[in-house]
This record gives sequence, structure tokens and C-alpha cells, in this order.
Amino acid sequence: MDDITIRRALRDDVPAIVRLLADDPLGRNREEPDEPLSDSYWEAFDKLRRDPNAVLAVVQDSSKTIIGCLQLNFMIGLSHQGAGRMLIEDVRVDKRYRNRHIGHRLLDWAVDQAKQKDCQVVELFVHQSRTDARRFYESLGFEANHTGMRLLLG
Amino acid sequence: MDDITIRRALRDDVPAIVRLLADDPLGRNREEPDEPLSDSYWEAFDKLRRDPNAVLAVVQDSSKTIIGCLQLNFMIGLSHQGAGRMLIEDVRVDKRYRNRHIGHRLLDWAVDQAKQKDCQVVELFVHQSRTDARRFYESLGFEANHTGMRLLLG
Repeated sequence: MDDITIRRALRDDVPAIVRLLADDPLGRNREEPDEPLSDSYWEAFDKLRRDPNAVLAVVQDSSKTIIGCLQLNFMIGLSHQGAGRMLIEDVRVDKRYRNRHIGHRLLDWAVDQAKQKDCQVVELFVHQSRTDARRFYESLGFEANHTGMRLLLG
Repeated sequence: MDDITIRRALRDDVPAIVRLLADDPLGRNREEPDEPLSDSYWEAFDKLRRDPNAVLAVVQDSSKTIIGCLQLNFMIGLSHQGAGRMLIEDVRVDKRYRNRHIGHRLLDWAVDQAKQKDCQVVELFVHQSRTDARRFYESLGFEANHTGMRLLLG
């Protein structure tokens, strides 16, 4: 798998990204990947593309099939002496391409984006059911020293 | 404490916010609240004010003393069918004003901001040493179903 490309998502990639999000024990209960996709996905994509602090990225293989994705959000805060932060969300790799280090290369790419933007903190949430994912992030140097809490509205 | 005000932070509030961030078991090792403050805090504040998706807010009492703060970041993603999300960070209430429901009012205000922006997911990280904070967020309906992972760079 040396011939993968990691790049910013284009509008045409949205259906493939939603399929990746839905092909997952948690995602299948909350996504609607059947086409035509709901407007909410297209509207979200258009807002993302206008947000200078958000990056939605995809991995494609040599045949231009989308086999992975993630989203980055760059933030600044006063804490840590005004450090830049990057939040990683919605990391997915197509099940058929697991164990080929694609997740590893995707995360290396993401951390490199954080460094380019002078972020000092990279953070992410892992659902407690995703024990493999947690071990994967620990292998990259992430520390599991926080509880991630969520409130769902309406 | 009926006469508190919650409002967006002004540049003049930065030293008081940094003192709140530093007056904390975790913050005291990473903040430098002595004035003159390092440029990094002022630069971070100026970037925050220019970011339409970030809100740094303070709580002031009737004498206009800053007694609490938090930061909100609004994001959009494709997951959850394109749901808006709000990340809450750096919540602090002055120790001398604890047990007066100020944190509760601050969080109610924050969740109201999420609703106004049509966010469906509100998320936050709590350091695992902050067991009281975790219980507090659970009392507001937050679920502790994720692990929050962090990687510190350079």
C-alpha cells in the first residue's frame, strides 16, 4: 500500500465518506448512507469547506477508491500559554484495508498538519467500546488521561 | 449569586482568565500568570477574537470581578448526519466562589449557545484526576462514554 494518497475531500467524495462513517458498529445507528444522501450531509460539507480551521481529508488507493477519512479542527485557547490545538474526529479506514498501516499513515499525516500549524496539543475522543483504536492511538504516543463526555441535544 | 453576568471576554480580561487557569492543580504547572503576561497569551486572545467559531466567555460578579471562564468551539462534521458540534474547554470557577451554582449557570449558558447554533452534540474533556468535575457534568446529562486522548507536541 505504498500508492495511497491523502488529500482534502472534494464534494464528490461525500457519498464514499458517509459510507465509511456508516460501516461501523456505532455509525450504522446514526448515519443514512443510502443515496440520494440527505441534504444535511451536503450542507455540512459546504460549511466545512468554508471553515478555514477545518480539514476533511480522505485516503485514496491507486484506483482512486476512497478507503479512509478523518477530520481535523484547529483551535486556539489561552490555556497551555496560548497553545494551538488540533482535534481529530471521525477517523475511519475501510475494513477491507485494515492491517496495512493505513490508519498509521493517516495519523502521521494528521500530526504533521498539527506541527505545520504550530499546534502543541492534539486531542481526540475514542468511544470506550473501541479498545483496538485506543491501543492504536497509545502506540502513536497519545495518552488516555481524560474522560471524553458528550451531551446529545434534541 | 443572582447578580452574575456571563459575557464574551474582552482583552482586558486576559490576565484574570490566565490567573483562573493557573489556580488549579493541573494549570499551575503549565501557565505563567505573572504580569506582564507572555505575548503568547495576548496573541492567542487576538486569534480567538477573530475566529467566528470560537467564544471565550467570562463570568463576572456584581463588582465586575472575573470569577469564572470557559471556551466554546463550534464545529461541523459529516458524522451524525452532518450535525453541528460544540466543544467546551477550559472551564474554571474561582475557588472562593465554589458551591454557589456558578458552574451550573455557566454550563447552562454554554448549552444554550449550542442550541442557538443548532448543535446536536456537546463534547468536553475532563482530566481523569477531576472526579468532582466529572460528577458535575454527569449531573447535567453528559455521558462519560469516551476516552479523551492527548498527544503533546514539542
